[in-house]
Amino acid sequence: MKYVGVAILGLGVVGSGVYEILAEHKEVYKKSHNLDVEVRKILTRTKEKAYQIGITDELLVTNIDEICNDDSISIVVEAMGGITASLDYVTAVLKSKKSVVTSNKELYCKYGHILESIAKENKVGLYYEATVGGGIPIIRTLLDNLQGNNVKSILGIINGTTNYILSKMLNENVSYDNALSEAQMLGYAEKDPTSDVDAYDSTYKLSILASLAFKTKIPYTKIYREGIRGVSLIDINYGTKLGYTLKLLAIGKNTSNGIEVRVHPTFIKSSHPLASVNDAFNAIFIKGDSVDDVMLYGRGAGKFPTGSAVVGDVLYAAAHTDSISYSPFENNENADPNVIFNDNFESAYYMRLLVNDTTGVLAKITAIFSKYNISVRQLNQYENGNNGVPLIIVTHITNEKNVRNAVEEINSLPNCGHVEAVIRVD
Amino acid sequence: MKYVGVAILGLGVVGSGVYEILAEHKEVYKKSHNLDVEVRKILTRTKEKAYQIGITDELLVTNIDEICNDDSISIVVEAMGGITASLDYVTAVLKSKKSVVTSNKELYCKYGHILESIAKENKVGLYYEATVGGGIPIIRTLLDNLQGNNVKSILGIINGTTNYILSKMLNENVSYDNALSEAQMLGYAEKDPTSDVDAYDSTYKLSILASLAFKTKIPYTKIYREGIRGVSLIDINYGTKLGYTLKLLAIGKNTSNGIEVRVHPTFIKSSHPLASVNDAFNAIFIKGDSVDDVMLYGRGAGKFPTGSAVVGDVLYAAAHTDSISYSPFENNENADPNVIFNDNFESAYYMRLLVNDTTGVLAKITAIFSKYNISVRQLNQYENGNNGVPLIIVTHITNEKNVRNAVEEINSLPNCGHVEAVIRVD
Repeated sequence: MKYVGVAILGLGVVGSGVYEILAEHKEVYKKSHNLDVEVRKILTRTKEKAYQIGITDELLVTNIDEICNDDSISIVVEAMGGITASLDYVTAVLKSKKSVVTSNKELYCKYGHILESIAKENKVGLYYEATVGGGIPIIRTLLDNLQGNNVKSILGIINGTTNYILSKMLNENVSYDNALSEAQMLGYAEKDPTSDVDAYDSTYKLSILASLAFKTKIPYTKIYREGIRGVSLIDINYGTKLGYTLKLLAIGKNTSNGIEVRVHPTFIKSSHPLASVNDAFNAIFIKGDSVDDVMLYGRGAGKFPTGSAVVGDVLYAAAHTDSISYSPFENNENADPNVIFNDNFESAYYMRLLVNDTTGVLAKITAIFSKYNISVRQLNQYENGNNGVPLIIVTHITNEKNVRNAVEEINSLPNCGHVEAVIRVD
Repeated sequence: MKYVGVAILGLGVVGSGVYEILAEHKEVYKKSHNLDVEVRKILTRTKEKAYQIGITDELLVTNIDEICNDDSISIVVEAMGGITASLDYVTAVLKSKKSVVTSNKELYCKYGHILESIAKENKVGLYYEATVGGGIPIIRTLLDNLQGNNVKSILGIINGTTNYILSKMLNENVSYDNALSEAQMLGYAEKDPTSDVDAYDSTYKLSILASLAFKTKIPYTKIYREGIRGVSLIDINYGTKLGYTLKLLAIGKNTSNGIEVRVHPTFIKSSHPLASVNDAFNAIFIKGDSVDDVMLYGRGAGKFPTGSAVVGDVLYAAAHTDSISYSPFENNENADPNVIFNDNFESAYYMRLLVNDTTGVLAKITAIFSKYNISVRQLNQYENGNNGVPLIIVTHITNEKNVRNAVEEINSLPNCGHVEAVIRVD
């Protein structure tokens, strides 16, 4: 029986979940994995929370040194979130030659390269399955299952808050503001929802996934980011008519024109497996050159699902102390200068215009499309509304620059109309 | 750079896929994994096939000793299928202290306990990701991600042939015989389809999955098995009307009454994520006590998807030579005598009867249901057909024994009718 002393930094949702899972399954891990896993210390300032789940004072510390200096501890779980304290603490822990398991996507995304180099120096591991997709086994799948593939593309619903909001708008026909309020009431969205709805959270996660998938560092700063704040119920409903479902997709593609990485609201065919991923669920759809299509689906957040991923890493770390793997790419702060990032990405586009109800308007607009080589796949003109005639256009595959130029030119036409919404179609 | 000499046993669909993936990605694995992976020898008797994919004579051998005695080979891929030769060959390879990666579910299911003990003795690894679900990363997910969970249930579509046949029957309204013929023409089904359609293949795979999920040996002989040979288009179509889709499900449940393991045609709600898994795709739906619901989806067979799983194992084996993991349970031939297997499993049931068009028949039938404590959830009587009145009944949750007793008693009633089909509903 191998003894595994564990410390937990932070006793929020994830930290308390990890504590409870480890406590409840202690005998199982002894029997199945020959591991005696014991939580030795918990770093927290909110003692009341600890008492509520049966943790007594002897486990509680407030000084990281008490963990670093404890030789009985070999694995430390970081579940604090944020950057300020966690970066210092994780650095100290790795330097004290203990492996770290973290659920902190912002920390790993922004400082993973520094932390990994410290881990390497000290011959300990740094594990981060819980940073993306909650309980979904996506990190280890990329590291230990699909690693023989050249990954062609990743499409992910990797933010539960925005997926909840978009699902609610679609299924209950409510506005963005109402859906957000409900998400906040249920605890799915924070009071300040910026990180989720403006897609910062998704870019951190996509940076982690795309780096593993394409085996080259993809800094989050390279990722095109567009959140769901501007999304209108009108477009969701037009999408339904056209057979599309709107999702905030994290997209990574490795094409002959370079690497595309982007997070934005995207229409996908309603028959696509990702379209039926509802509420706070997450899913990641991967296309590899050998494996073809693989999809992983599950709960993208929550005390026990994320706790499950952390505990999986703890047991893995305990079982693999002799052969620790690191990133299958040069893990630097910046991208490899030889890698081409393509931000003029190719896509089909949905556009909603409100145009004037006069003859010749359609001819002017289609002339502009033609000028920029944009081929129209579908065009629907609806009944005259209060502010003009709604015109819905879906294009064939074109590229970002062409579309932006065309939109600018249409909007500058006098007495013609206005492009109200542009949504990429994948 | 670590040199990894590989041998491949068998050059059928999987073996040639593995060879091609390793050859094509050689430089990638050097760069990303610091592994120089080289196929040194291939055991095959069909040289022509080898020549077709650019393999020259110097790699080809017909005697296993040439592989066992080659010290430059550290990992051997078994892709022969069948039992007779593969069991002897894998045994010899493990005894020569080389790790084995196999895609052979029948071999691993029936002899995995013997082979694992030989691997342990010789301090080498035995890897089998490719035995279940083709390219889907299900084995490692159970071993290295969800291992902290008590798994409550597994529901899997793990046989592509039968899923192709059932999808075709449903979507194109064709008979079982026609769908099977088409599957045979396309190479999805073998000339003798017994192993697939009678669900032997699925029981081997479920044995492997359930043992990992429940952390106790589940011999395939403990699995209730019912194939799709008896499935009628009539029932598929009635199911559609009721909101159900028919799938050949591999089911494992760990309940308070014991472990249930069974493979049989099953109606699931058409809104369930497994219902939209079509054609030759596979998917496995797992419920863990911490992670809750997780689903993995992908191509369950084929040269490159299965090759992807094999190559993933080869790279994993090469990276983890110092800390090899074995099964998280006592891997014996038989089940742990302390484990209770419950074959009187609880389920809802769909039944189709053809009854006589006379008064009192329904009263007699419902009296029998009542006698066996079977509660009816839904009852539809359709128009009189040629042979009687079709009566479709869906029950609330009951158990296997009650249903069998009731069916027997109904069928023995004079001048009443006959139970034409019984399908479990999950």
